[in-house]
Amino acid sequence: MAITNGTHSNGSHEDTVPLARYLWERIHQVGVTKIFGVPGTPFIYNVDGLEWVGNTNELNAAYSADGYARVNGAGCLITTHGVGELSALNAIAGSMTEQVKVIHVVGQTSLKMQRGRMMIHHSIGQSPNHQMFNNASREFRVAAAELQTAKGAAEEIDRVLRECFIKSGPVYIFLPIDLVDVHVPSKALQTPLNVEPEVDPKVIDDAAKTILQALESSHNPALFVDCLVQRRQAVEEAKQLVNKLQIPTYDSNMAKGIIDATNEHYAALYNGIPSAPGVHEAFQKHDFVLVLGNLPCDTNTGGFTRKIPTNAAYINTEDVQINAWKLPNVPLKAVTKRLIDLADPSKIPHVKNPKHTLPPALPEEDADSKLITQSWIWHRLADWFRPHDVVFGETGTAAFGLPDATFPADTHWITQTYYGSIGYATPAALGADLALADRAEKQGTPRGRTLLITGDGSLMLTCQEIGNMVKQKLAPVIFLINNAGYTIERVIHGAECSYNDIVPFNYEHMLPFFNMPPAQAKKCFHKAHTKAELDAILALDRVQNPTSVQVVEIVMDRLDVPWRLASGVAMRGPEAVREMREAGFRVRDLTNSSDFWN
Amino acid sequence: MAITNGTHSNGSHEDTVPLARYLWERIHQVGVTKIFGVPGTPFIYNVDGLEWVGNTNELNAAYSADGYARVNGAGCLITTHGVGELSALNAIAGSMTEQVKVIHVVGQTSLKMQRGRMMIHHSIGQSPNHQMFNNASREFRVAAAELQTAKGAAEEIDRVLRECFIKSGPVYIFLPIDLVDVHVPSKALQTPLNVEPEVDPKVIDDAAKTILQALESSHNPALFVDCLVQRRQAVEEAKQLVNKLQIPTYDSNMAKGIIDATNEHYAALYNGIPSAPGVHEAFQKHDFVLVLGNLPCDTNTGGFTRKIPTNAAYINTEDVQINAWKLPNVPLKAVTKRLIDLADPSKIPHVKNPKHTLPPALPEEDADSKLITQSWIWHRLADWFRPHDVVFGETGTAAFGLPDATFPADTHWITQTYYGSIGYATPAALGADLALADRAEKQGTPRGRTLLITGDGSLMLTCQEIGNMVKQKLAPVIFLINNAGYTIERVIHGAECSYNDIVPFNYEHMLPFFNMPPAQAKKCFHKAHTKAELDAILALDRVQNPTSVQVVEIVMDRLDVPWRLASGVAMRGPEAVREMREAGFRVRDLTNSSDFWN
Repeated sequence: MAITNGTHSNGSHEDTVPLARYLWERIHQVGVTKIFGVPGTPFIYNVDGLEWVGNTNELNAAYSADGYARVNGAGCLITTHGVGELSALNAIAGSMTEQVKVIHVVGQTSLKMQRGRMMIHHSIGQSPNHQMFNNASREFRVAAAELQTAKGAAEEIDRVLRECFIKSGPVYIFLPIDLVDVHVPSKALQTPLNVEPEVDPKVIDDAAKTILQALESSHNPALFVDCLVQRRQAVEEAKQLVNKLQIPTYDSNMAKGIIDATNEHYAALYNGIPSAPGVHEAFQKHDFVLVLGNLPCDTNTGGFTRKIPTNAAYINTEDVQINAWKLPNVPLKAVTKRLIDLADPSKIPHVKNPKHTLPPALPEEDADSKLITQSWIWHRLADWFRPHDVVFGETGTAAFGLPDATFPADTHWITQTYYGSIGYATPAALGADLALADRAEKQGTPRGRTLLITGDGSLMLTCQEIGNMVKQKLAPVIFLINNAGYTIERVIHGAECSYNDIVPFNYEHMLPFFNMPPAQAKKCFHKAHTKAELDAILALDRVQNPTSVQVVEIVMDRLDVPWRLASGVAMRGPEAVREMREAGFRVRDLTNSSDFWN
Repeated sequence: MAITNGTHSNGSHEDTVPLARYLWERIHQVGVTKIFGVPGTPFIYNVDGLEWVGNTNELNAAYSADGYARVNGAGCLITTHGVGELSALNAIAGSMTEQVKVIHVVGQTSLKMQRGRMMIHHSIGQSPNHQMFNNASREFRVAAAELQTAKGAAEEIDRVLRECFIKSGPVYIFLPIDLVDVHVPSKALQTPLNVEPEVDPKVIDDAAKTILQALESSHNPALFVDCLVQRRQAVEEAKQLVNKLQIPTYDSNMAKGIIDATNEHYAALYNGIPSAPGVHEAFQKHDFVLVLGNLPCDTNTGGFTRKIPTNAAYINTEDVQINAWKLPNVPLKAVTKRLIDLADPSKIPHVKNPKHTLPPALPEEDADSKLITQSWIWHRLADWFRPHDVVFGETGTAAFGLPDATFPADTHWITQTYYGSIGYATPAALGADLALADRAEKQGTPRGRTLLITGDGSLMLTCQEIGNMVKQKLAPVIFLINNAGYTIERVIHGAECSYNDIVPFNYEHMLPFFNMPPAQAKKCFHKAHTKAELDAILALDRVQNPTSVQVVEIVMDRLDVPWRLASGVAMRGPEAVREMREAGFRVRDLTNSSDFWN
C-alpha cells in the first residue's frame, strides 16, 4: 500500500486520475471533510479540504464517523480488511438501524493475493477466502462497491455514494490495494454527484393532497414528529410544517429538539404510558394524527404503549401510508415540502393546544435533597444548554432522563436509543465536535458546544477517544454520571448483583493520562456531590465557554433512576413493581398496559 | 432476563435442570472456570467453580477469553445479541484463524420477539430479523447451537461444545431468553462430555509407520515444529518426540517456546530468508523434514520464503500428508503419540545439529548505544524471563523482535501473528493471568508471571482492560515500548507521515486513572530511556516478583526497528531498500526472493 500525493504521475494521464483519488474527490464532493480511522490503513490522497483524523481504535472511528454524520449529513471512515473492518462492524450496524449516512472504505488485499487465497496476515484459515469479512457486513449496509477491476469502478463508486444518501445508511467501498493507483477517467468529477432521490411531482402532489384531505376532514388533529425526519434532512421542513399547520405537535424521546419546545404549537413529548401526566390521555383524544419520520422501537414508544389512532397518515422515509393505503416512492422531505406549499391554514381545524390544560408534573419525594438526584439533574442541565449546542445522551440514565427536560430552541439532541450500544456517545461526540465549525459556517449560526452526557458504565467502553479530543484540541464538556455501575441494568436485572458493578476509574486522573498537562487538567476537572457544587461548576466561565475538554463528574446514588426508566420496567407487572420497591427503587404507579417484557 | 440461583424450583423437576444451568454446568465440566463479558448480559447460574469476570467492553472480553483459552485449553464469554455480539466479532475471527477454543454464548431476544419481528432495542430496521447478527459470525465459528426450542437443546449444546475441542476454534451458543429457565433432562450431566476426536487406531498406525519409513530412509532429516501443536494440546508430545527422534529441530516465530531452546536437539528458529545467519542454508540441506502443526502464513514464514523440501511429511491438525499423499482423519496429537511409541532411535539417521556450525550473529552497528535499541532490548528481556512465564508479544515490533532472542525452558509464548489484530495482547494477558493459578495447580508447576510486551500504538486500542487488571488484583508486568507511534507502519508505509502518529498518552498517570491508589501507583510505574535505567528496573524485587500490576515504559527511537521486520519489507525489492535507508531505517541486505508484496 502507498500514500501518494495524487498529482498526475505524467502528462499522458491528463484525463484520468488514480482510482483512489477519484474516490476521495467524490467523498469530498458529497460534503465530507474529515476522514476517521486508525493508522495502518492508508491510501488517502491529499485532496484539498479532506483531513485525516486518526482514532484510538476502529470501533471508535466508526462511532466518530456516525456522530460526525449526524451533524454534517454524511461521515466516512477507512479501515483495513479483516481486523479493522470487523472491529468497526458494531458501530456500522448502529448506523444502519439509526439510518445514519456512513461511508466505510475498506483497504483490501491485492487481487493476486485474493485469487491465490494467500495466507496474508488478517486472513482466516489455511486457504483463506479474503472476502469473508465483506460477507459479515452484508446485512448492515444499504449498498456496497465490491471493486475487482478498475473498469467501471468510478461509476460503481458514484452509484454507492448516491445510495448512501438516497437510502440513508452505511455503504461499503472495498478497494483492493492494487487498484489504488490504476487510472480511471476523471471527467465525471467535473459534475457534482446527484444524491437527491428521483421524484415524480405528480405522485408527491397526490400524497400531499390526500394527507391534507384527511387532515381537513378531521376535528381534532395533531402532528407527531419522530427522529427519521432528521435523518432525511427535513428538520427545517418539519419546523415550517408546524408553523403552517398550527395544530398541536408532539415528539418522541429520539426526536427531541427537532421541533422547538418553545414553539407555541408544541404540545408535549409523547412516549405512551410513561409520558408526563395527562399526555397519553390528551393524545388519545385526537381523531387524526399526521406522523412524520416514525421510528417505533420499544425504547422510543414507552415499550410499545405509544398509541397512534387508526385514523392517521404516516409520512415515512420513502412512502406515505394513510390508514391501510400505502403510496410508495414518496421521499419524506419532498412530500413535507409539498405539504407546506399546499396547506391552507383556513381549512385546517383550529385545535386548542392541550399543553395548557395538562396536570402539573408529579411532586418529587426527593425534591428537597441537597444531593444530586435523577429528578433534578436533567432539568438543571437542560436549563444550562444554549441554542445550537449538540447534546449527546448516552444510552443509560441520560437517555431516559433528559427527555423529561425542556431544551432551548435549536438544541441538536443526539441519542442512539434504538440501537442502544453503550460506549457510542463518547467517540460520536468527538465526531460531532469536529463537524460543528463546518455546520456553523454553512448555516451562518453560532458554533454551539458539544455536551456529552454519559455514565461511568458507558464511558469505560470507549474512554480512550477522550485522548483524541485532547489531541485534536477540541473543547466538549463531558458530564459523567458516576453512580457506581450499571444502574440501568440494576433496575432491570438485579439491584445488588455484583455482576452489575463495573471496573472503577478515578476520573481525576483521566485528563492527565490522556496527555493534558497536569496543571491544565486540574482546572478542567470538576466533581460535584451536591446540587450546590454542580451549580457552582456550571457557573464557571471555563465550563460555560470551554476552550479545552472539561470533565464534570457528577456523583449520584446507585439506586436512583429516572422515573421514565423505572416505569418502563414496572410495566412488566405488579411483581416487578414489588421487587423494585423492595430493592430500594422508587417506582411510579402506571397502568400495566404492555406485556412485551415477558 | 433473570439471574437465577439455579436451585430446582420445585420437587417435580428433580430429574431436570433449567436449560441455562445445563449449559453452564457443561461449560464448567469442559474445564472453564472464568466467564468473560460485559454487565448487562445475564443468566449466569451460580454453578460451583464458575466465576464471572466483568470486562470493560465486549471486544476486550473476547480477547480475554482467547488469552485465557490459550493457557487453559478453552475459554468462554457471554454477550448480549447485536451490540455485544458484534463488538466481540473481530476477536472471535482471531480465535478462528488462530484455532483457539472460545465458547461465545449470546443472550438473544425471546422467541416471541423474534417471531413478531419486534423492534426491540439493538435490532436492525423497521421489521427486524433478530437473527441478522447470527448471520454475521457464520464464517468465524466452527459450530453453532441456534437454539429455538428446549427440545433437544441439551444435546445440541453437547454437540457444539464437542466441536469446539475437535475442530479447535470458536463456537456460538445462541440462547433466547425465554429458554433460559425451561427445564431439560439433567441425566447427561452425570457423564463428562467426551471432547476427544474419534480415531481409528489402524489409520493412526498406518500414518505413524509411513512417516517413520520416510524418516528412516532419509540421510539428513529434521523436525519442524509449528504453533498448531499448541492448539491441539500436543506440546508435551512434541517435546517427547524431539527427545525420541534426536534429529535437528526447528521452530517458527509463532511456535517459540514449545520446544525448549535449551534442548540439545534444538537447532534454530527458521523463518525463511529473514532468519539468523546460516539458518536458511542449513535448513535447505535437510533431505527430509517432518513438519508438525504447520501455520504457513506470511508473517510466520518470512513472507513465504520458508522453504520446506519436497520430501517432507506434514502432521497437520486433522490429517497427514507425505509428498502428494494425504491421509484424512488423523488427529495431530494421536499420531504424534503413536510416533513416539513406534520410533526406534537406532533406525533414525544420526545428524549433527547444525547449530554448532552456524555463523555468529551479525554485529550490530548500535551495539555500543547507551540508549535502548531494538538490537538489544529483546535479548535483555528474554534473559530476564523465567520458566513458566507467559509472555505476550503484541503485533508490532515485539512480535518481530522477540523471536530473535533465546527464551528459558517452559516459556509460554503467545503472539497473534497470523490474525495480527493490534490491541489483542492487553486483554488477552488479563485472560491468561486469570488462568495461571489453575494451570499451575493442574500441572504441579510454578505459577509463572504474565509478561505483556506491547507498544504505545497497540495499547491505545484496548487500554481500559488494565483497569480490570487492577480491579482483579492481578500482577502482570507490562513492558510498554513507547516509540511515538506506529513504527511498524512507518517502515511499511511512510516514516515521517503524520498519519502514523498516534493519540499520545502520559503513562505515568495510567494506573491512578485505573483506580490504583496514587501512592501505590507511583511505585508500580517505571520509565527507562537508557539501558542502565532498564537494568535497574529489572533488578527491582517488585518487578521481578510483582504483587500488583507493574508498568515499565521503555522509550525507544521511532525509526528503530527489529532487523527481521526491516528485512521483511526490504524483500519488496531494491527500491524499498533505498527508500527505507533514505528515511533513516537500518536495513540488512537479504536476497530479494519474494515478490508477494507487489
